[in-house]
Amino acid sequence: MTQREHRLGELAERFGGEAVGSADPVIRRVASLGTARAGDITFFSHGRYRDELAATRASAVIVAREERDATPLPRIVCADPYLLFAKIARLFHEEPAATPGVHATAVVMPGARLAPDVTVGPLAVIDEQAEIASGTSIGARSFVGRKVRLGAGSRLYAGVTIYPGCAIGERAIIHSGAVIGSDGFGFAPEAGAWLKIPQMGGVRIGSDVEIGANTTIDRGALDDTEIEDGVKLDNQIQIGHNVRIGANTAIAGCVGIAGSTRIGRGCMIGGAAMIGGHLAIADRVIIAGGTVVTKSIDLAGTYVSVIPATPAREWRRTVAMLRNIERMSDRLRELERRLSELEQKK
Amino acid sequence: MTQREHRLGELAERFGGEAVGSADPVIRRVASLGTARAGDITFFSHGRYRDELAATRASAVIVAREERDATPLPRIVCADPYLLFAKIARLFHEEPAATPGVHATAVVMPGARLAPDVTVGPLAVIDEQAEIASGTSIGARSFVGRKVRLGAGSRLYAGVTIYPGCAIGERAIIHSGAVIGSDGFGFAPEAGAWLKIPQMGGVRIGSDVEIGANTTIDRGALDDTEIEDGVKLDNQIQIGHNVRIGANTAIAGCVGIAGSTRIGRGCMIGGAAMIGGHLAIADRVIIAGGTVVTKSIDLAGTYVSVIPATPAREWRRTVAMLRNIERMSDRLRELERRLSELEQKK
Amino acid sequence: MTQREHRLGELAERFGGEAVGSADPVIRRVASLGTARAGDITFFSHGRYRDELAATRASAVIVAREERDATPLPRIVCADPYLLFAKIARLFHEEPAATPGVHATAVVMPGARLAPDVTVGPLAVIDEQAEIASGTSIGARSFVGRKVRLGAGSRLYAGVTIYPGCAIGERAIIHSGAVIGSDGFGFAPEAGAWLKIPQMGGVRIGSDVEIGANTTIDRGALDDTEIEDGVKLDNQIQIGHNVRIGANTAIAGCVGIAGSTRIGRGCMIGGAAMIGGHLAIADRVIIAGGTVVTKSIDLAGTYVSVIPATPAREWRRTVAMLRNIERMSDRLRELERRLSELEQKK
Repeated sequence: MTQREHRLGELAERFGGEAVGSADPVIRRVASLGTARAGDITFFSHGRYRDELAATRASAVIVAREERDATPLPRIVCADPYLLFAKIARLFHEEPAATPGVHATAVVMPGARLAPDVTVGPLAVIDEQAEIASGTSIGARSFVGRKVRLGAGSRLYAGVTIYPGCAIGERAIIHSGAVIGSDGFGFAPEAGAWLKIPQMGGVRIGSDVEIGANTTIDRGALDDTEIEDGVKLDNQIQIGHNVRIGANTAIAGCVGIAGSTRIGRGCMIGGAAMIGGHLAIADRVIIAGGTVVTKSIDLAGTYVSVIPATPAREWRRTVAMLRNIERMSDRLRELERRLSELEQKK
Repeated sequence: MTQREHRLGELAERFGGEAVGSADPVIRRVASLGTARAGDITFFSHGRYRDELAATRASAVIVAREERDATPLPRIVCADPYLLFAKIARLFHEEPAATPGVHATAVVMPGARLAPDVTVGPLAVIDEQAEIASGTSIGARSFVGRKVRLGAGSRLYAGVTIYPGCAIGERAIIHSGAVIGSDGFGFAPEAGAWLKIPQMGGVRIGSDVEIGANTTIDRGALDDTEIEDGVKLDNQIQIGHNVRIGANTAIAGCVGIAGSTRIGRGCMIGGAAMIGGHLAIADRVIIAGGTVVTKSIDLAGTYVSVIPATPAREWRRTVAMLRNIERMSDRLRELERRLSELEQKK
Repeated sequence: MTQREHRLGELAERFGGEAVGSADPVIRRVASLGTARAGDITFFSHGRYRDELAATRASAVIVAREERDATPLPRIVCADPYLLFAKIARLFHEEPAATPGVHATAVVMPGARLAPDVTVGPLAVIDEQAEIASGTSIGARSFVGRKVRLGAGSRLYAGVTIYPGCAIGERAIIHSGAVIGSDGFGFAPEAGAWLKIPQMGGVRIGSDVEIGANTTIDRGALDDTEIEDGVKLDNQIQIGHNVRIGANTAIAGCVGIAGSTRIGRGCMIGGAAMIGGHLAIADRVIIAGGTVVTKSIDLAGTYVSVIPATPAREWRRTVAMLRNIERMSDRLRELERRLSELEQKK
């Protein structure tokens, strides 16, 4: 067997599940219920996929304890099928091997310090005094500014931009088009125009942080913008200057966070939510996608402000009513007055 | 006459309109009503521009049948002036001619296969085993990943990034900063932190698709993210992993579509609309700009959830009322009870 | 003293404040209240920071006239502490000195005209007939298209893309990933598909404009998209084709402005606001973050349409009520009728 083949029983043992049916099948790949074929392992995480489970051609399935008998196929029974699936997928997933070394067309400026096993892709630029730690890979066309520090085992995909002076921890994953350390949006009004305030802080990013494609993180005005360990940022997110994001908070795509706001630890922020500036959001707050946050949130819990899409004709009437709501309130009060009068006459 | 001059009559005949007034004017350019001068053709599409039509210095105008007499100028009368204008504009529009060939500073990795008439701009990178079909042009500083397939007649502008393994059809137009194939946002929670789920699917894009500047399309987790033929995506759109977008759907700027959602064919999605994950949107659905979609939509039609901007003072009162709406409902019920009681006493 | 040291009295005199306490301290740096140490000047702009003011280790503080006695430290008393702080910060802020010259790896195409003191970073591309005026700096990996004109004293950070034919004024600051001049989103429907309308206009940008990271500005369809002098654009903004933005308007991150809309002068648009197409917004309009604008605004003032985030359970009831609001209105009318009837019976 090569390294990329594992018997089902071996997988179960390794990741803490129980092989049921047979421990023998040789697994070579993970796949979805619908596309799996012989040699694949798949997972069953939700009752609505029961038909697909019945039809799957996978060699094995990962199921939850309460679904132990949901399939006659060889299976791994465990507490959290999605997590166990993630672990097996990581085992099988083949990262394109990068051969350490600096591509001939990359530009490494004098004074940059690269660990011997760093990979630098074609046409990347590493500016003066940048420090790149062991095992890190810099994608083609990426730009690492002056005095940037990049931790060990990190991976920048093609076309990442890091402004001077930013510091990033270990095992970072940064996707294409991400920009880290651009100027915060700071201007003082002067005689009808705007005077730019120099943005002199930096960006400090912890370890195990992932940053999505085309996401932007501004440098601080005076102090640093801070992203703590384990934060996961999806694509097209905008983080303003001097924002602080607590450890293990996950933020979905298109979210904007205005300057100086502090987000707690373990928060989950849904796609396209918008969070105003100078706010404090507590730990373990969940903000629904599309929600606008204009005030600080002190208590863990789920917060929303989204009105679901409605057929246009119906919605037009609702908006008209909404505009009339104050008038409705007045009419209510008037009715209450008249009715009381009438009741007293009895 | 050079190739870029056409008599009005010739244009009318070629594109299915009727030359009225005179077929003789020589047309060299298209222009707007306000900026047109001698030699230009313009178009009149909406009554509110009647003053500009009266003042235009164009040599000819395209008008709808019901506006046949709206101007004394030489004109083309047709069913759809905007469409006919588009066709004439395409005839006149001069694309900067790209001389086929690979620029000396581009990096083409071993095993990449380029048709002989492909153009590769300065400092572009074509990775191993990528296949670029005939007539395609790769802009400066673009990155085409390993095993990417790019169909014939496509155009990537400067600074496009395509991750490994993505497949794109013919006649694609992809604008600067677009990122195709970045990892989907997939993590399994484990002991308060997040375990990354490898994103092993790809992105499959049909023919005649346009992708706007800084738009991002994530690769699938297990299966592919799919964009069908004729889809038009504006700038700064985010498409999550395993989304499927049906043929000829048009999506305006800043829209976000969360993972595993399926959008039908012939849909139109307005700017900054946000569509949640795991939803199904039927064919020919129109979603108004700024609308948040949180549930599947089964029926064609127009959907909205947007409250139009209101002067701040007025809005503050509306929001306060909205917060009181449950209380208003209670008061209504109480009034109904008291009134019934009173009526029965009669 | 080197150039980067100034006595407090000198700073006060230079920028129009009054040195109080002592004019002697030597200032070498600006800092926030919390991080300042000896040699730093800081500022006090809001009562909520009074504790931090009491604890600061700064050598001097900038305070407003009405806060003249808020601290015993040496201080500058002035009308607008934030503005004066901005001016002193600009004095101290050290821009990384760029040595004029074209990096050996940059690609400057034939016919491009660069002033002698222009700086071009590694792997930047300047296309044919581009004109770059004196003192301008082009960051690494930036792309300046054919016939682009860039005014004096401008700075493009790493990885900016400017499409052919765009014109930008003096002292522009353009951040990484910004794309200027991509095609507007213009298509004519034809038999269920979309026919692309050539985008033949350009982008014309005034002087003293700042453009944030990953912001996109589309070229016009026929005429130009226009950004007037002094406009400040934050990150991830999308400006559609033929939009016009008036002088000194400031726009925060993630805002989208659809095609052909005209924004007045001196406007302030909050983050993630979305402004529809073909609208006219008057001068000095303030639009709150997250607001959706669907109609033209004729009067200066503040406009909002945002419902603040609410705990999920409470919000669910509010939305249910909102869906019932028409029914409530009907019930009100019915109550009014019945009550009138009852009153008349008296």
